[in-house]
Amino acid sequence: MSAVRETVADRARELSSEVTGPIPGSKKVYVEGSSPDIRVPMREVEQSQTPLHFGAEINPALTMYDTSGPYSDPQAKIDLEAGLPPLREQWLNKRNDTEQLGGLSSDFGRQRAEDPLTESLRFERLRLPRRAVAGSNVTQMHYARKGIITDEMEYIAIRENQRLAELHDDALKRCHPGQSFGASIPSEVTPEFVRSEVARGRAIIPLNINHPECEPMIIGRNFKVKINANIGNSAVTSSIAEEVEKMVWATRWGADTVMDLSTGKHIHETREWILRNSPVPIGTVPIYQALEKVDGKAEELTWEMYRDTLIEQAEQGVDYFTIHAGVRLPFVPLTAGRVTGIVSRGGSIMAKWCLAHHKESFLYTNFAEICEIMRAYDVSFSLGDGLRPGSAADANDEAQMAELRTLGELTKVAWDQDVQTMIEGPGHVPMQMIKVNMEEQLKSCHEAPFYTLGPLTTDIAPGYDHITSAIGAAMIGWYGTAMLCYVTPKEHLGLPNREDVREGIITYKIAAHAADLAKGLPGAQVRDNALSKARFEFRWEDQFNLGLDPEKAQLFHDETMPKQAHKVAHFCSMCGPHFCSMKITQDVREYAKEKGLGNVEYAVEMGMEEKAKEFRAGGSEVYVPKKETATEG
Amino acid sequence: MSAVRETVADRARELSSEVTGPIPGSKKVYVEGSSPDIRVPMREVEQSQTPLHFGAEINPALTMYDTSGPYSDPQAKIDLEAGLPPLREQWLNKRNDTEQLGGLSSDFGRQRAEDPLTESLRFERLRLPRRAVAGSNVTQMHYARKGIITDEMEYIAIRENQRLAELHDDALKRCHPGQSFGASIPSEVTPEFVRSEVARGRAIIPLNINHPECEPMIIGRNFKVKINANIGNSAVTSSIAEEVEKMVWATRWGADTVMDLSTGKHIHETREWILRNSPVPIGTVPIYQALEKVDGKAEELTWEMYRDTLIEQAEQGVDYFTIHAGVRLPFVPLTAGRVTGIVSRGGSIMAKWCLAHHKESFLYTNFAEICEIMRAYDVSFSLGDGLRPGSAADANDEAQMAELRTLGELTKVAWDQDVQTMIEGPGHVPMQMIKVNMEEQLKSCHEAPFYTLGPLTTDIAPGYDHITSAIGAAMIGWYGTAMLCYVTPKEHLGLPNREDVREGIITYKIAAHAADLAKGLPGAQVRDNALSKARFEFRWEDQFNLGLDPEKAQLFHDETMPKQAHKVAHFCSMCGPHFCSMKITQDVREYAKEKGLGNVEYAVEMGMEEKAKEFRAGGSEVYVPKKETATEG
Repeated sequence: MSAVRETVADRARELSSEVTGPIPGSKKVYVEGSSPDIRVPMREVEQSQTPLHFGAEINPALTMYDTSGPYSDPQAKIDLEAGLPPLREQWLNKRNDTEQLGGLSSDFGRQRAEDPLTESLRFERLRLPRRAVAGSNVTQMHYARKGIITDEMEYIAIRENQRLAELHDDALKRCHPGQSFGASIPSEVTPEFVRSEVARGRAIIPLNINHPECEPMIIGRNFKVKINANIGNSAVTSSIAEEVEKMVWATRWGADTVMDLSTGKHIHETREWILRNSPVPIGTVPIYQALEKVDGKAEELTWEMYRDTLIEQAEQGVDYFTIHAGVRLPFVPLTAGRVTGIVSRGGSIMAKWCLAHHKESFLYTNFAEICEIMRAYDVSFSLGDGLRPGSAADANDEAQMAELRTLGELTKVAWDQDVQTMIEGPGHVPMQMIKVNMEEQLKSCHEAPFYTLGPLTTDIAPGYDHITSAIGAAMIGWYGTAMLCYVTPKEHLGLPNREDVREGIITYKIAAHAADLAKGLPGAQVRDNALSKARFEFRWEDQFNLGLDPEKAQLFHDETMPKQAHKVAHFCSMCGPHFCSMKITQDVREYAKEKGLGNVEYAVEMGMEEKAKEFRAGGSEVYVPKKETATEG
Repeated sequence: MSAVRETVADRARELSSEVTGPIPGSKKVYVEGSSPDIRVPMREVEQSQTPLHFGAEINPALTMYDTSGPYSDPQAKIDLEAGLPPLREQWLNKRNDTEQLGGLSSDFGRQRAEDPLTESLRFERLRLPRRAVAGSNVTQMHYARKGIITDEMEYIAIRENQRLAELHDDALKRCHPGQSFGASIPSEVTPEFVRSEVARGRAIIPLNINHPECEPMIIGRNFKVKINANIGNSAVTSSIAEEVEKMVWATRWGADTVMDLSTGKHIHETREWILRNSPVPIGTVPIYQALEKVDGKAEELTWEMYRDTLIEQAEQGVDYFTIHAGVRLPFVPLTAGRVTGIVSRGGSIMAKWCLAHHKESFLYTNFAEICEIMRAYDVSFSLGDGLRPGSAADANDEAQMAELRTLGELTKVAWDQDVQTMIEGPGHVPMQMIKVNMEEQLKSCHEAPFYTLGPLTTDIAPGYDHITSAIGAAMIGWYGTAMLCYVTPKEHLGLPNREDVREGIITYKIAAHAADLAKGLPGAQVRDNALSKARFEFRWEDQFNLGLDPEKAQLFHDETMPKQAHKVAHFCSMCGPHFCSMKITQDVREYAKEKGLGNVEYAVEMGMEEKAKEFRAGGSEVYVPKKETATEG
């Protein structure tokens, strides 16, 4: 066993309690679908009973969407050298439209597999790649358009369903209706709804047939808003072991997909380790690796070697590719007057190539052939916004909009071949310009899912760009963006470490959830209500466990309140015993209950005779708290 | 000298470099008004020259709004025991409508001043209190309505003016116009504009005549959005020295006002130390102290002792009082069915009192008399939202709205006596319900400034509520809120320490600035543009210094890039030398400049003949970057 492989495995063992144990306060559960091999993981949080003086209610467990894969399941055996079990293998076999190849199709891939210098870095137990048999199309969109509901779609329907919403109708009544954009969101997600959204291109299921370890998920604006976390080494820092660990860590805190943006040496090998151990879809930007193959000289890039790179990565199992095919030669001049020019790495590489050859981008001219590759492995497009603004000053300019319209044009080309497609978006956009971005994208790109980086709503806070961008992300998520690419506190300054990754992810879980609430996703507010009820009743542990980061909440609390005391204290360190407003509210409720005061008096006093009549007719004593359904806490 | 006073003074000495030195990368400057005693402090950030290969431009210094008071001025002598110099004293004397009293008017204040037990805690060098002479009204609103432009108003006009906007018109052209609500914001803030906004109640200048140390500032939606930081000990934690230090720390990072929410022992003494050393307005919630005087028994509160508390605090110099006069008896029942009842401390105290006596709130019934006290010292109202929602489930309910309408009614009463008034707002509000809050407030409260706590856009992230709330704060600031009360990461969990205060403040500076950008505040984007240009040109130090937290930006950068190297490196650790998109953009610009490619080609290729003609006529070579004005970097 090589030193590097040992390092990866050691890391997994060493960190088992932090990175691979159960998430505090919750346990892993599985919901079975129509067949036993559809087992959808969820995270269940148990709650304690409401204290006696608050009414002694039973508070049921809540189940939550869970991205952490087998790592948070104490029953699962984790062996990074073996990789995760290929849970989709049977489904793929059953469809009988793919074949296992005798070896890698990519020249570079074969060369790399035989290179003695990288032997010590390689993931050993490789599967042979799988590809669509000649003449077949194996994308989820293709099946969807043929009316087929795949196992993946059923899995997703179960996963997306806020089961709580079905169970606890009363709680839902408190969920204020929001705005939804486009199709209305159904109160229950059915497999057929998943199929129909994929068929019309409004959602994608990024799942390469060579990444059977991946737990199916969906990206579309009529589902939960998703978040992506970027990892990746650069020439300067990071090892393979660190990157695998970051991937596990990211999914633990809630990353729905992970992009491997490595640009250093051993990109190929790093990616293999990540894919074989990732329970979530992995995205890449193939041009980064292509550029490495020509030693960073953009003008030396060729279509042939880019094509080989796509095949190399597709056969490894990458689920979606960022491809900057909208950076066309005529758009490049539009960036010259910008404050921050072209800030996308892929965008600037292609711009340089276009100018060096004074030719149209080879990604644009060969787009139909790219689609043929994508559909043979079901790799999804993430059409890159290479001309996104890098500052408030450049937001929504002609360069950005010209590219966006081109991405819409390319979406149609992709859809002609049933290739799943999403569209990347900015970047840096002040608040008042965000809605226009979303509207333009929906219009230009025919409702293909939007996947935005933030956007950052101001440029003046380096060190806090997870926050400048969470504001924009929450807003654009509300307006209809389907996936939010996280930004960490290190944005613009350096590469994120593990704590930065966690901070970035939790921040983006907040933005995504705030967006789900605002767009009225059924059941989304059940968790808020449960947490708030726990807070009101001083069920501290429940409050922590229902939150996005139980560890930090507990830590912060314990800093000012001794650990044992808080379990019984009905006040907290912020106010002290006399000033606890929650305690006083409870006193108010009890006092008023005794006296039997109610809404009638209020209505009379306010001159609302009609209302008063209504209350009298209902015989309601409002001071008796409304029956709280158990799920609201 | 007592032990406590020694502690306070020692603390100031000990922390001089961290809390009282100049802010990294900037120096203190003063802009003089029409007389030499109007000296408005600003913070100036010098910039280095653009590197040769980017064009060798001179980048001028930027001045910034500065809340840090004399503490960041190396010329100033800081002596916490003496307090800050009373910069407004001459102005007050000159107006000749106040008198110095022979002693304190408050019974409690006199008793406390003579108590040997608190002797060791007292601020020693007390001034005698000042009060309006009988029959006169000394509020800024009163002067404004009489057409008088006070020294304070002139000071504020200089302070609010984005001097940059005047100096650098070209930069302004890049500042995309936003939406403004209500009156249009003038491109230059004049003293007369300040007066007119105060006269019509759309802005307040919170400045007690007994707080002459305070640097004048304004709160209103046609000015920069302001932020407030809360400090204060509770029975459980914190000492006087810590609270004074927190105040200095908070203003250093940008707090425009500070609320002292102390609830423990020695509230009176703590407040005195804070006021005598605070360069920003101090707000309090007098009912907290009143409740302490009756040992926490809300039902024992009386109008007489509350009145004495108001006078006690007014004569100390508190600039605005949160008064929950809108928590009326008939509204209390409306909270009984809530998930989180009444979460405002002041609100729950008053609710309990109302129920205990089954009487209307003494704050409501004595409101006109309260106004008389306020106008004698020019204390501003911050009409408290005692019934604000404590969870998403309770947002925008009838309890909240009934109280809001009452606050509007009380605003009219206050304005009848020319008492300055702002209105407090929620709280917990999902995104889609935020705008309604702002609209209702403007309508019900006759455009009196709105001052909101967040709002938090989801309840599920204890430990990260600075972020859940910054999203809501930025949005409501854009819609028209004049001041945002910060939330720290410890919200709901414990009392914030110094790092939490800093994190909360920077987060809220982001929200406030994002709101300024979105509402189109003239000149607001100049700082963004300058920082982005510095970023693009790899002027790392300038990027740090122009940011909200230079220290953290530098620290984060240095973690992955050696300190000396970065001063010359034209790439960074995120991408490494080959992949630097900014470097490539620059190459693109230079390459294109040589080749003379331009917009004409683009227009022709895109079939935009008209545009092409225009470009040809203009003879523009777009690849030559537009003349960047120096202020854009």
